[in-house]
Amino acid sequence: MNIQLIFRLIGSILMIEGAAMTPSLLVSLYFGDGDAMAFVYTMLLLFAIGLPLWLLAKPRDTNLRAREGFLVVPLAWILLSFFGALPFMFSGMIPNFFDALFEAVSGFTTTGASIMTNVMNQPRGMMFWRSFTHWVGGMGVLVLTLAILPKMSGRTSHLVRAESPGPTLSKILPRMGDTAKVLYLIYGVLTAIMLGVLMLCGMNFYDASIHAMGTAGTGGFSNYAASIGAFNSPVIEWVVTAFMVLFGVNFALFYKLLRGDWRDVKNNEELRWFLCIFIGATLLIALIILPDYEGNFFTSLRYSAFQIATIVSTTGYSTADFNLWPIAARMLIFLLLFFGSCAGSTAGGMKICRIGMLCKQGLREVRRVFQPRKVQTVRFEGKAVDEAILHQVAVFACVYVILIILGAVLLSFNGLYDFETNFTAAVTCVSNVGPGLGAVGPAGSFAGYSAFSKIICCVLMLAGRLEIFPILALFHPAIWRK
Amino acid sequence: MNIQLIFRLIGSILMIEGAAMTPSLLVSLYFGDGDAMAFVYTMLLLFAIGLPLWLLAKPRDTNLRAREGFLVVPLAWILLSFFGALPFMFSGMIPNFFDALFEAVSGFTTTGASIMTNVMNQPRGMMFWRSFTHWVGGMGVLVLTLAILPKMSGRTSHLVRAESPGPTLSKILPRMGDTAKVLYLIYGVLTAIMLGVLMLCGMNFYDASIHAMGTAGTGGFSNYAASIGAFNSPVIEWVVTAFMVLFGVNFALFYKLLRGDWRDVKNNEELRWFLCIFIGATLLIALIILPDYEGNFFTSLRYSAFQIATIVSTTGYSTADFNLWPIAARMLIFLLLFFGSCAGSTAGGMKICRIGMLCKQGLREVRRVFQPRKVQTVRFEGKAVDEAILHQVAVFACVYVILIILGAVLLSFNGLYDFETNFTAAVTCVSNVGPGLGAVGPAGSFAGYSAFSKIICCVLMLAGRLEIFPILALFHPAIWRK
Repeated sequence: MNIQLIFRLIGSILMIEGAAMTPSLLVSLYFGDGDAMAFVYTMLLLFAIGLPLWLLAKPRDTNLRAREGFLVVPLAWILLSFFGALPFMFSGMIPNFFDALFEAVSGFTTTGASIMTNVMNQPRGMMFWRSFTHWVGGMGVLVLTLAILPKMSGRTSHLVRAESPGPTLSKILPRMGDTAKVLYLIYGVLTAIMLGVLMLCGMNFYDASIHAMGTAGTGGFSNYAASIGAFNSPVIEWVVTAFMVLFGVNFALFYKLLRGDWRDVKNNEELRWFLCIFIGATLLIALIILPDYEGNFFTSLRYSAFQIATIVSTTGYSTADFNLWPIAARMLIFLLLFFGSCAGSTAGGMKICRIGMLCKQGLREVRRVFQPRKVQTVRFEGKAVDEAILHQVAVFACVYVILIILGAVLLSFNGLYDFETNFTAAVTCVSNVGPGLGAVGPAGSFAGYSAFSKIICCVLMLAGRLEIFPILALFHPAIWRK
Repeated sequence: MNIQLIFRLIGSILMIEGAAMTPSLLVSLYFGDGDAMAFVYTMLLLFAIGLPLWLLAKPRDTNLRAREGFLVVPLAWILLSFFGALPFMFSGMIPNFFDALFEAVSGFTTTGASIMTNVMNQPRGMMFWRSFTHWVGGMGVLVLTLAILPKMSGRTSHLVRAESPGPTLSKILPRMGDTAKVLYLIYGVLTAIMLGVLMLCGMNFYDASIHAMGTAGTGGFSNYAASIGAFNSPVIEWVVTAFMVLFGVNFALFYKLLRGDWRDVKNNEELRWFLCIFIGATLLIALIILPDYEGNFFTSLRYSAFQIATIVSTTGYSTADFNLWPIAARMLIFLLLFFGSCAGSTAGGMKICRIGMLCKQGLREVRRVFQPRKVQTVRFEGKAVDEAILHQVAVFACVYVILIILGAVLLSFNGLYDFETNFTAAVTCVSNVGPGLGAVGPAGSFAGYSAFSKIICCVLMLAGRLEIFPILALFHPAIWRK
């Protein structure tokens, strides 16, 4: 185990987190809500720990092996969440440690589930930091590290592989550092465009930046109790709907689009599935909720499109409390909680390509029933998919569901809430969506859970963000052996 | 496609169903509740259709190919359920066709979910037939056909493979017909022993046979509203608990035991997992429900053991309404609804060996995170399991969950009931357990669902009993092509 390299990486990540607090500090100073010192203390702490680690660690070998990569990533996420929670505590906005940790984990994992029962009139620097964690967490902290630090180490694909969602890693450029730079560049530009569009729609700069960061990272924290619904503007709702769908798209496709590979984008099977699911579910639910909106199809379509976009992109904003919709609409939303968007996007969930490969594998098993001897390949994106990948996808899906059910069981030991609340809380945490059904619905919060349950939620959110196995690996004794 | 052979098989199966109504007819005649003619009409109908099919079909080739085998099995089950429902309608006990069909499917698939809101004081012949369907459905109708008809056809393993649960078929004897005979012999003897023990405990012959058949097939229909709880006898409860666990054991192990292979039984990994899960869940839930039973550990242990046995064996009897238990107990029961017992038993569910293989595959993926190049096999029952089987098990589990979620969505189109009811109704149908949570809990019934929802439940129950793919294959256009 290359401990020196791990220390060096962790040191740099802590300092990057410290540096990442600068915009929030500036917001804090600008508004003067008295929360600036909380950032200063945390930043000093981060540099006081990060700098010695960075300076003293002398790795002889800068090649990161798989074991080290997959050890660094979950450790880094846990440390980031821990230190990211400190400003909330220091400023007094969230005095309880477990609550603050929950909020930070929910932020970095872009879940957007909250323990705050009142988000109005809070220190604005804190609320900015809360949403900023979405933005960094969406594309990835290790990806950011690679983008910033030149030649940090030789082989770094393990880091990106552990942090980038999807069954296979799509390398945009041959060098990981360049890929990371391009990804963050596209990400930044798209976020800036959204910020501008929201301001054109009448939002002020502060609100627009909060909601642009929340959408870009597919997080979902808002500084209004009614979320996007607070703006009471159909235009803003459609704009956010469109951007939520956009940030559910594989970023490699944006790069291809920039290079003029229009055909690749048009033929992308995952994208087509994603849009079909979004449009199909939107229309179906618009019909189901039609009576709730007095038969006005355009109103019900708007509410349906927003809520479906928020669920499939795993963002978690809301303009309507779907908890009050008919059971058929709620059950469909529950189904979509598992899906997520495209691999290589900032969204959580199982990812559409995995769902697609699973369905095709299921169909193959059906065909095998009556053609047991015929060799049948599963094709995705126009190519036969390797059996090992298919096998991994199926096992991933199983572990995903097992984790959700075990999570729901553990949440129930709380003794609180009903089946619907505990079960959908586990799903929404693992899928990094944010709201569930019942008491954790769009109008509810996770505030009522015990500290134990909040820790469980944190583990589920981190497991979901890092696609389960890296987090589970931390619990495996063999990873800690020399 | 060997249509002649299929017709011949279907004809014989219909006649066997007619013959299988004889005991119920005798019960009917003995008690004189006026339901005898309903059996006579149905039996005449079955022979009027079955005999010509049997006589006129002249298969040139008696070798059953996979496609034919997997076409016959689901078709046979659908026809059996249809004709099995007729006595209920003819006698007027269940006048509505969809209700009667639901009851028959629930019977044959050994689910034990019921649309009857009153089971007391019903015609006793009908109630006997209702439970008799459990007994035949538990071990399998095609298996029964093979046991009865000598040299029906050359290769018949496809029939047994489609009907016997589990990822691999354990052949007891080289010839399928002999295997089928041995299985039914062990099955009959065990049922008779249970009947005797129940009578020793004070049950009358009629009640004892109803509950012995329901336990042997792991079905769950009772002729008392309070199910086994109606007897108010701790001894009977423990006896039924023990037999429910017994019928969750792979029947191949009973055969091995008879042959004196004690070591094979002792070393059976699936059996050990099964017993560990049963004992562990029983103790855990006994502790959770302790306050509900005034701190009396033995009482809570008895209720817990019975309810866990009924869930893991997928029987569905009850002595307590676990709907009223704390949420942690209910969530654990929900988890166990997926499990089922050993492959090759009469129980439904995913089967313990599949759960075991899934967990081991999940652990392998965790190890692969930090040892990506090491070849790692998954061992079960002391042997490395073939990767193709592991892959199939994972895909099966995924399709199992997908089917449940889609089923829950379709049940919700009813517009009735809450999330908990619809979701657990889908799980309990696919796993062939019987009761769920909420309105379909132990004290509830499926009576409130619409005809559409009842059809969905029938499809889910049949899919669960035949392990999904044979039923899905019926919907695949290619199976109907020449």
